[in-house]
Amino acid sequence: MKIRIINPNSTASMTAKIGECAKSVAAPGTEIVAVNPSDSPPSIEGHSDGAKAIPGLLAEIAKGEEEGFDGYVIACFDDTGLDACREIAVGPVVGICEAAMHSASMIATGFSVVTTLSRSVPIIEELAEKYGMHRKCRRVRASELPVLALEEEGCEVREQIRDEILRAIAEDRCEAVLLGCAGMADLTDWLSDETGIPVIDGVVCAVKMVEALIGAGLATSKVGGYAAPREK
Amino acid sequence: MKIRIINPNSTASMTAKIGECAKSVAAPGTEIVAVNPSDSPPSIEGHSDGAKAIPGLLAEIAKGEEEGFDGYVIACFDDTGLDACREIAVGPVVGICEAAMHSASMIATGFSVVTTLSRSVPIIEELAEKYGMHRKCRRVRASELPVLALEEEGCEVREQIRDEILRAIAEDRCEAVLLGCAGMADLTDWLSDETGIPVIDGVVCAVKMVEALIGAGLATSKVGGYAAPREK
Amino acid sequence: MKIRIINPNSTASMTAKIGECAKSVAAPGTEIVAVNPSDSPPSIEGHSDGAKAIPGLLAEIAKGEEEGFDGYVIACFDDTGLDACREIAVGPVVGICEAAMHSASMIATGFSVVTTLSRSVPIIEELAEKYGMHRKCRRVRASELPVLALEEEGCEVREQIRDEILRAIAEDRCEAVLLGCAGMADLTDWLSDETGIPVIDGVVCAVKMVEALIGAGLATSKVGGYAAPREK
Amino acid sequence: MKIRIINPNSTASMTAKIGECAKSVAAPGTEIVAVNPSDSPPSIEGHSDGAKAIPGLLAEIAKGEEEGFDGYVIACFDDTGLDACREIAVGPVVGICEAAMHSASMIATGFSVVTTLSRSVPIIEELAEKYGMHRKCRRVRASELPVLALEEEGCEVREQIRDEILRAIAEDRCEAVLLGCAGMADLTDWLSDETGIPVIDGVVCAVKMVEALIGAGLATSKVGGYAAPREK
Amino acid sequence: MKIRIINPNSTASMTAKIGECAKSVAAPGTEIVAVNPSDSPPSIEGHSDGAKAIPGLLAEIAKGEEEGFDGYVIACFDDTGLDACREIAVGPVVGICEAAMHSASMIATGFSVVTTLSRSVPIIEELAEKYGMHRKCRRVRASELPVLALEEEGCEVREQIRDEILRAIAEDRCEAVLLGCAGMADLTDWLSDETGIPVIDGVVCAVKMVEALIGAGLATSKVGGYAAPREK
Amino acid sequence: MKIRIINPNSTASMTAKIGECAKSVAAPGTEIVAVNPSDSPPSIEGHSDGAKAIPGLLAEIAKGEEEGFDGYVIACFDDTGLDACREIAVGPVVGICEAAMHSASMIATGFSVVTTLSRSVPIIEELAEKYGMHRKCRRVRASELPVLALEEEGCEVREQIRDEILRAIAEDRCEAVLLGCAGMADLTDWLSDETGIPVIDGVVCAVKMVEALIGAGLATSKVGGYAAPREK
Repeated sequence: MKIRIINPNSTASMTAKIGECAKSVAAPGTEIVAVNPSDSPPSIEGHSDGAKAIPGLLAEIAKGEEEGFDGYVIACFDDTGLDACREIAVGPVVGICEAAMHSASMIATGFSVVTTLSRSVPIIEELAEKYGMHRKCRRVRASELPVLALEEEGCEVREQIRDEILRAIAEDRCEAVLLGCAGMADLTDWLSDETGIPVIDGVVCAVKMVEALIGAGLATSKVGGYAAPREK
Repeated sequence: MKIRIINPNSTASMTAKIGECAKSVAAPGTEIVAVNPSDSPPSIEGHSDGAKAIPGLLAEIAKGEEEGFDGYVIACFDDTGLDACREIAVGPVVGICEAAMHSASMIATGFSVVTTLSRSVPIIEELAEKYGMHRKCRRVRASELPVLALEEEGCEVREQIRDEILRAIAEDRCEAVLLGCAGMADLTDWLSDETGIPVIDGVVCAVKMVEALIGAGLATSKVGGYAAPREK
Repeated sequence: MKIRIINPNSTASMTAKIGECAKSVAAPGTEIVAVNPSDSPPSIEGHSDGAKAIPGLLAEIAKGEEEGFDGYVIACFDDTGLDACREIAVGPVVGICEAAMHSASMIATGFSVVTTLSRSVPIIEELAEKYGMHRKCRRVRASELPVLALEEEGCEVREQIRDEILRAIAEDRCEAVLLGCAGMADLTDWLSDETGIPVIDGVVCAVKMVEALIGAGLATSKVGGYAAPREK
Repeated sequence: MKIRIINPNSTASMTAKIGECAKSVAAPGTEIVAVNPSDSPPSIEGHSDGAKAIPGLLAEIAKGEEEGFDGYVIACFDDTGLDACREIAVGPVVGICEAAMHSASMIATGFSVVTTLSRSVPIIEELAEKYGMHRKCRRVRASELPVLALEEEGCEVREQIRDEILRAIAEDRCEAVLLGCAGMADLTDWLSDETGIPVIDGVVCAVKMVEALIGAGLATSKVGGYAAPREK
Repeated sequence: MKIRIINPNSTASMTAKIGECAKSVAAPGTEIVAVNPSDSPPSIEGHSDGAKAIPGLLAEIAKGEEEGFDGYVIACFDDTGLDACREIAVGPVVGICEAAMHSASMIATGFSVVTTLSRSVPIIEELAEKYGMHRKCRRVRASELPVLALEEEGCEVREQIRDEILRAIAEDRCEAVLLGCAGMADLTDWLSDETGIPVIDGVVCAVKMVEALIGAGLATSKVGGYAAPREK
Repeated sequence: MKIRIINPNSTASMTAKIGECAKSVAAPGTEIVAVNPSDSPPSIEGHSDGAKAIPGLLAEIAKGEEEGFDGYVIACFDDTGLDACREIAVGPVVGICEAAMHSASMIATGFSVVTTLSRSVPIIEELAEKYGMHRKCRRVRASELPVLALEEEGCEVREQIRDEILRAIAEDRCEAVLLGCAGMADLTDWLSDETGIPVIDGVVCAVKMVEALIGAGLATSKVGGYAAPREK
């Protein structure tokens, strides 16, 4: 099984971290290839960054189809371009926000999300609504860390995220916390230990979900909303 | 007041029709400029067409900002890239689906939409949900006419749309019908006459809505979700 | 274009303020007439005040129809009697809460409302639900100022409202604030300046919205819920 | 226990029928007084009829308070003026639509409503939404019988309603049917027998509900939305 | 009229308290029998306690059917096994959470719930959603008192509940408070007096509601979801 | 990885079929054990059958915990006792309805369900609501085949299901169809071939989902709603 993980931003160090994280949980027999477009913004912070990343993202899906990939992960917590990717791919495509929310809903009655900047909060809230998770999603919180600060890894960054998780536990009546950025994937274990609550990373969940869908013999439905694009 | 109407697809004849329609309803003192990107798909039929149109659309907004436009209309019923455009524009940006739905909700207790292909139905349903119009939107119907068939204007095309409207009246308990494609803008009057129900075109509504917002002194809020993109 | 603005309460000083405010934003060619019934409560604070105001309000609509008005604004933030007025009017009728909420939803991802007394909070929350704005409406807040205190204009009144807006910004994650009473219409600019967030007045929005609907050629649908009253 | 049943329209024969129906189910010790305002429309068919009926309705509540009534029933399926009445009454006030929907929700997983004219359908749908019953309310159906036709009692009228109930059973997957007009109260038993499904009348349910609330020691909360009207 | 009140847990002192409370509000002519299964958990605190109580609960319903009971109350605020009981009973079956929420919705625009342990909060929130009461239910609060602490009646217990009610009034904008455990039934009057807000007990409401349904001639619908179990 | 699949009914032939189906999709290294309680109903058709099956089901989870199982599947489309099982298990517990709905939502914009008897329709609709899938779940349809008819496998049974799927495609605008009973697990491939739409079986999806959750390092959160039962 070949899974292509596409980090829609152009920061290669983040792609490497994501790929490593994905490989550490992939099943035996799953081949992980982590890529990123070269012509997209270095980080996706808001709607227009996301919009600018999509053409490169779609090109990576198209390349994946040529190379025979079985499924895809979109490794940005905004689930950038997810519906458009599904039109182009034959196999399943899973976003990391979607995967984290579906997973959390099966192990907890409610969860909060800790993301980067507050400008991303309405985007993630809209995804929760779209996925039917608005009741389970108690609150989306911003740590006010920019995405790329996560690449300059230092103690303070992870402690800032930990403190926001502790606030979520105290105030939101949440039973799990989702990390709202692919760049936080390497902090999951430390944060779970520090906070005593399941801390869930979307990259890990999405890899396992796309393996699950492929293993269940499911491909993207080509009847209706995800039909292949029409030729012009 | 200068309003820039952006048809996100690259079909210039459709842009011309949209511009004409917009000018016919614009208030005295409103200058309408209708444009389209040259590097986008000739029609937007589904998510990936939409995604491919966004970079050109954002460039048209950026150009508009340089040239001092006061507001913008996105003239595709999928409201392509609307949130991203709002980050870049200072003045208001209005989508034609959004404008038509808000307008309809103030003159009727429920409406149906008649669009082009069935692949667009889930996209418009999701917009209805996003705008809080899912209760008022009785049903989204496909006429199964491709977007560009609307450019080859013939009697059959408009009759096919009329017949779908008549089915909506008979089956959906709707009190108004929205035309779910910018390319139908010139058929509004004829369809209203034929069907005896308010038939609402999004281009007309969006021009009047953006005039209204500007006239009310409102600009896009730069606090939160529509803040200007961060510099990288 | 002739627009009749009906303040459903009987306080003439408030009607004058509303009319002035409306005229200041009306398009060239729009004639504004602001009226109020003489036999309604001096202020509308709660359901029964509203109910008592409706017969006089309907009479003002009927008078407007005889005099050839093209559209109407109901200038009370409870949108008193809005559906009943639509049955009687041929042209569009717009409530100021409705207009403010629709407008806010096109320039911000979320807003709060600052109104007068806490007894009005559930009424406005129910309107938000009815208009499909409950997700966008972060919170309805009471300043605990009675409606008529706004007529005794003094510094303290406007400062009390400003302080509630500042609390809304700090606590609600709102991107705009709606003034939840027609009597606050003259404070908009000062409050926007003081708080740095778009502060939105419903009277202004409703005037521009009803101009927009008329300009788009739309009248109230007479099929179904807003059909003219049956003769008995 | 004294319960005042107010038919908000001015048709005395309907008030008599409602009163009889109420008395037939009242508990021993419950005194039923059925009244109607004299200055309201002869039937309530749509929003403006309802609005015109409210002042007389409120006066009947006020009279009831003076005379020491313990609770009230509003005997129109639009639950005309219900919130306003609650501000004025100390004891509980129950609408017949509300009572029928709450009752149905405790004996069936879903129900349909058969009402008079189609113009009332959006009003009842909005009530279902307000009461949280939109999921349980499968469909609101119009028999297209005007309210007063129910007073000219003939076989055809009741057969027309029966036929609509049979269509509801066949098409809506409903497990009970609500009669959507106080004027149908006398047909309940015959319709249940003919259709083999629980047919529920709101007058009966509301009498028993208001008895239940009073018996439970509950009065209308005077904290917040139903506080007594402010003196001006 | 014979009503069987089933406390699904096996603590007889609680059953006695519930029975007493029920008798104090029952109408003349209503015979109350309060029972509990002997083989169920001593208290229901969470999903698995509830699940273990259901077989005994169903047996009590079956026994009631044999003995000719007209209706049933499930006296646990989780409304344990309510749908299953409805399949077996001919007459109406009412849960105390359901009865309290429906009652509260007719006397207040919003309410909060004060229950025992925080593990019960998501269960009650899900019931609010199921009954369409999620908008009216402002918040479900835990006093962190275990169910059986309510049996060791002491001043501190009732004061702890009172303090949580006072917090609900201050923070939730609620207009009534529901006691979220059958074991609190005897505290209602004292708590109402202390807090100045309607405090609502589910046992009382459910007794009156089931009397009301029976009095209205309503039985559980046997068409669809509550049809009698199929023989195997 | 050891996964215990519990068929909550007592029909061993169905358990065998489910186990076979599960093994055919399990990953290398996953050990599948399929069991059923001996003291539960032979089929689960409605709420009371479900309630009666839960004690045996919980005992099977408890046995699984002793024997060191890593996760569980509840193999009944009503997701019988799911929340109660989660309190007892340390590892993840997944229901087949839940798994099928989450999976479908990642490969299609909307789906229908084809189940056995119409009495199960409201149960599955309530699950769709609980899981946030009510917008994606276009319709739940009954084939009117009893559960055990699926064990007497003959051509007619599978053709009856196929015909209902074809009706779903024609009428519901669905993009995938879920088989609403564990006993249909062996028909998936044939039905997909016959209907040309993704046909999704819950057993397969649940096995892959629970593998995914375990592989992602996730266990049931023990903070809040799924905390271990309290000792009495």
